[in-house]
Amino acid sequence: MSSVDTSLHPHTSRRAAQFAKAHSTPNPLVLYGGWFCPFVQRTWITLHEKNIPHQYVEINPYEKDAEFLKLNPRGLVPTLAVPVDPARKEQKPLYESVVICEYLDEVYTDPTEHGPSLLPANAYERARCRIWIDHISGRIVPAFYRFMQHQHSDLSPYTLDEARAEFLHHIKTFVQEADPTGPFFLGDQFSMVDVMLAPWLCRLFLFDVFKGGLGIPAEGKGGADEPVWQRWRRWAKATEERQSVLDTLSERRQYIDAYRRYAEDTTQSQVAQATRAGRRLP
Amino acid sequence: MSSVDTSLHPHTSRRAAQFAKAHSTPNPLVLYGGWFCPFVQRTWITLHEKNIPHQYVEINPYEKDAEFLKLNPRGLVPTLAVPVDPARKEQKPLYESVVICEYLDEVYTDPTEHGPSLLPANAYERARCRIWIDHISGRIVPAFYRFMQHQHSDLSPYTLDEARAEFLHHIKTFVQEADPTGPFFLGDQFSMVDVMLAPWLCRLFLFDVFKGGLGIPAEGKGGADEPVWQRWRRWAKATEERQSVLDTLSERRQYIDAYRRYAEDTTQSQVAQATRAGRRLP
Repeated sequence: MSSVDTSLHPHTSRRAAQFAKAHSTPNPLVLYGGWFCPFVQRTWITLHEKNIPHQYVEINPYEKDAEFLKLNPRGLVPTLAVPVDPARKEQKPLYESVVICEYLDEVYTDPTEHGPSLLPANAYERARCRIWIDHISGRIVPAFYRFMQHQHSDLSPYTLDEARAEFLHHIKTFVQEADPTGPFFLGDQFSMVDVMLAPWLCRLFLFDVFKGGLGIPAEGKGGADEPVWQRWRRWAKATEERQSVLDTLSERRQYIDAYRRYAEDTTQSQVAQATRAGRRLP
Repeated sequence: MSSVDTSLHPHTSRRAAQFAKAHSTPNPLVLYGGWFCPFVQRTWITLHEKNIPHQYVEINPYEKDAEFLKLNPRGLVPTLAVPVDPARKEQKPLYESVVICEYLDEVYTDPTEHGPSLLPANAYERARCRIWIDHISGRIVPAFYRFMQHQHSDLSPYTLDEARAEFLHHIKTFVQEADPTGPFFLGDQFSMVDVMLAPWLCRLFLFDVFKGGLGIPAEGKGGADEPVWQRWRRWAKATEERQSVLDTLSERRQYIDAYRRYAEDTTQSQVAQATRAGRRLP
């Protein structure tokens, strides 16, 4: 691990800091996370949407807490400590953000306390959501990192324009499958599909900072694709303004500092290393 | 598409052929598949395990049927045509083998007709299954293709031994998470986790044919890892002998012919191309 990486801001800020503080007292359900990690934000948004009592513990991914490593020796964040046997205070770890969020949705089902499920009741619609969650995790997110970590070099297997085009292609495919009216993927109802993409939406401004622009055309400038980009803008606006998304964000300056290492392709994070090696994200 | 690929045996054989024939009459639920595709076999095993009435339609992945492409323009197999509105005979497509299998398990729940669920009733255990299904799809299966498509060349980014070691490493990690007694991942109960890996288990003999051996030590020769490999052999034997697995297999000769193109890295299949490009499997 390079010493550069450990210079990460040790604490979250702004509204995410308030949300973390409001969940700092002991609870049988514990989220171990890192403020800047978008996979952690997926879990955070789910906990917020469903109003689930929990404790948040900040983990520096480069200087991991011993108690946390005892719970999950793999050391991945997010890790959720689940009270499998509350009588004995036994907790077991869950990891993988999609698995964690689906678990929370399946366990916290009282509509009065936790609101509607984040997945549709109809099995076919639920399966369709899983296809598009898989598209986000398996295509959009890896393309985000290939774009962000692109370096101008003769050795680079792809150009910056190719990386940008691939990312936008996967976004467009996604938008074309969304409910035509929206604003969310399924229509009026905010769902797990929106949760899964929201953290990267919040980080798109970083392409303006580091990569000469994201490349999504401005309003009215989309040419033949204008209707697709209009639908995208409708989704992005509604998702960005969602309370659970706003409340799990730190200040932009911190993200810029954290992602500079991605943009320069010098970070040793597991996501960055997998991207560099052309492997699936951990 | 190279003309080589279209020389694929057009039909399944042996027990899989019997199973396909027994499900050749029209039914509102249709599986479009290719006999040699392991992702299709996952779906087939699930349909068999749960005794789900369906029609099987063989699709040559290189010469796709027009009616099938109307249902799923992406043209991926397996595709399941789902009767969303039986009154109007309306069918909608599902694809992605994990999504299809979970859909079938969620919809066909009558224990008398369809047996027990393939996922545990307990939410934590179900989430744990999803973590290990993800390990299979995201680590073991891609490593299978990197190993199978390895070519001795100065340009190869890894050696055959490295590809083999990576594959075995992911297998070992999986085995260490399995119920210690077994024989299946969860113990006595055959589950979705076993379904997800079974098709590649059936194809491991191809490493003996093409790649100088799989490299799993013979009984008693595993050294410090002997207990892990013992547990693996127990899982492999029970899974190989499972009725649903046996009944969805064609003859070995056909697999050898089909996978020669993978072993020589000349196939243009989507899985092979993604492996070559260091990208996630489609």
